Amino acid sequence: MTEFEQRRRSVAALLPQYKVDALWVTSLPNVRYLTGYAGSNGLVLLLQGEAHFFTDPRYATDAKTNIDCKVHICKGPLYQDAIHVVRRKRLKKIGFDPTQLTVSTHRALHDGLPGTSLVAVSGLVEELRAVKSATEIAKIERSVQINSEAFVRTMRRAKSGMSESEVAAELDYQMRKLGAEKPAFDTIVAAGPNSALPHAHPSSHRILENELLLIDMGAFVEGYASDMTRMVHFGPPPARTKQLYQAVLEAQLTALDTVRAGVAVTKVDAAARNVLKKYGFEKAFVHSTGHGLGLEIHELPKIGRPAKTANKQPEVKLETGMAITIEPGAYLEGFNGVRIEDTVVVTETGCRVLTPTTKELLTLY
Amino acid sequence: MTEFEQRRRSVAALLPQYKVDALWVTSLPNVRYLTGYAGSNGLVLLLQGEAHFFTDPRYATDAKTNIDCKVHICKGPLYQDAIHVVRRKRLKKIGFDPTQLTVSTHRALHDGLPGTSLVAVSGLVEELRAVKSATEIAKIERSVQINSEAFVRTMRRAKSGMSESEVAAELDYQMRKLGAEKPAFDTIVAAGPNSALPHAHPSSHRILENELLLIDMGAFVEGYASDMTRMVHFGPPPARTKQLYQAVLEAQLTALDTVRAGVAVTKVDAAARNVLKKYGFEKAFVHSTGHGLGLEIHELPKIGRPAKTANKQPEVKLETGMAITIEPGAYLEGFNGVRIEDTVVVTETGCRVLTPTTKELLTLY
Repeated sequence: MTEFEQRRRSVAALLPQYKVDALWVTSLPNVRYLTGYAGSNGLVLLLQGEAHFFTDPRYATDAKTNIDCKVHICKGPLYQDAIHVVRRKRLKKIGFDPTQLTVSTHRALHDGLPGTSLVAVSGLVEELRAVKSATEIAKIERSVQINSEAFVRTMRRAKSGMSESEVAAELDYQMRKLGAEKPAFDTIVAAGPNSALPHAHPSSHRILENELLLIDMGAFVEGYASDMTRMVHFGPPPARTKQLYQAVLEAQLTALDTVRAGVAVTKVDAAARNVLKKYGFEKAFVHSTGHGLGLEIHELPKIGRPAKTANKQPEVKLETGMAITIEPGAYLEGFNGVRIEDTVVVTETGCRVLTPTTKELLTLY
Repeated sequence: MTEFEQRRRSVAALLPQYKVDALWVTSLPNVRYLTGYAGSNGLVLLLQGEAHFFTDPRYATDAKTNIDCKVHICKGPLYQDAIHVVRRKRLKKIGFDPTQLTVSTHRALHDGLPGTSLVAVSGLVEELRAVKSATEIAKIERSVQINSEAFVRTMRRAKSGMSESEVAAELDYQMRKLGAEKPAFDTIVAAGPNSALPHAHPSSHRILENELLLIDMGAFVEGYASDMTRMVHFGPPPARTKQLYQAVLEAQLTALDTVRAGVAVTKVDAAARNVLKKYGFEKAFVHSTGHGLGLEIHELPKIGRPAKTANKQPEVKLETGMAITIEPGAYLEGFNGVRIEDTVVVTETGCRVLTPTTKELLTLY
């Protein structure tokens, strides 16, 4: 049995508890998880004991060769052919994800399937995806290693006077030469005050002597993401930068120390946040402590503050095999921002930090 | 008045004909078109005479500095803050795009705005975006030039024995060094039989002497996309490859000849398809003849066959200032595939081919 068939069985096993005959899967990472299809136009209809995959003629040869469930090559919109299968199989209840399906496709299903009810089922595949198999962890680990090696190779040639964009281009090139398919997201290279913008775009700004550089980079390797942030100082760092760095490093290490199967994600977030509070940087930490990663750069679980919603949400706990980032940061507008980020795997007794790159503040002369 | 303010006024001017007080814009390219925001979490609520932009704290500094409408920095989901504005302004009818909005956000709006009706308005901003301003065409032209120059520089060092992935990494690196933000899509480098898969991923396959190579590449420069496909043969091409190439080239040139403001897009598609039919390659042409491009790699208009839908769609005609690709192809499974693609701008009397790269079959020894 292939890993895809195994996953489809795991999903199918959950259908009875949602009282649906089938699941309508349109999110491409979910489609890839369930079939291996890595293209841009796919849909899965997952039933008990069988699954149907829909794509267009551009992918016909690829799909017929590589996909181990029933393949439909569609000339029009994929949902039309999938509707025919639902009708032919006389399915009564179809689960769909309301956070993924658009209003117009929902309407088309509603109109095209008068005898079938559409049942909202959110995040079912995403929750399974949060816990990785050994094969998946091995891929994430290769992705992390390539990503870190690309960082090291680029830093060997980095010097002040290079632009943020040049450094970003070099990082991306090195990761590709090492075997990555592509960056897992737009590589962030932000110098000096730009580092205080948590999602800066690399610019033509040339790095100055005595500037701090924030590098946030990740690779996709065999479809799996890595994610790392490191700081580099050009010339000896001033005391204020060192203090900021040490505070964020302490927050990162403290958060890592709390990671363990069974621990609430909000507890990990609070651990980082409390350290930054101690140093007066609480308000400078404007994002969450981390996130899951795998076929997407952002997956479940989110390692953040408790949600402020009216309805009480069930507490999310870490589980063995989850792959997550731990990445606290502090951003002082007009001065510098610091973020330190590793990719780790949750274990029964703690976590395994996959990222091999040193967390000393790298100083280049 | 900024270009963004101008665009917002053009959209606002259309609201009365849809009988809505405001437009709810969630598609990120549309948000960028209307505000300049290039991040990953933004929403626009567009009213007559005013516009509200919503993002999260990571983008606070950037948004407050650069965005010329009312900026809201939101701690929770953006739609919650936007709902408050709708309530405060007592808006009665909000237009939303059912092909963009998810079922769950639609439900949240419906529940959060009991006195407001939600009206489906599809593709309003997309239709405006299809016709480019002179500034936008200049950006697309720079994107095309960088893309073509990256192709030329890479081909100077390309040789058999390199893997598809290595060539792709080199193309991407060269475009970045020339000033591109990133590739506009995953660069396709497909050798030999892989070229017959219209959307192949670059593999570790090493290009053989006497193999045909398909390269489909595009850049994002100042946010705007380019798109080009060229074929390269390693060693002298055999007669069957030359024939296939000539047929596709004739189809491409014939389609280019039909492009002119006022011509139906289906006529351009038919022009390419008829040439390929003449050579017996009709069934080997498994995609459309082209597509618009701009802030996205695929935009309106689609240059394809007439839609086979029950309701008669209004005929789409080319307009002066549309930026489109013309890219017929023919794919012979197990042998070779050929596609030839230019980026062009529609004019009153024909079109201006932006792509400067030769369309002779490039032969490398």
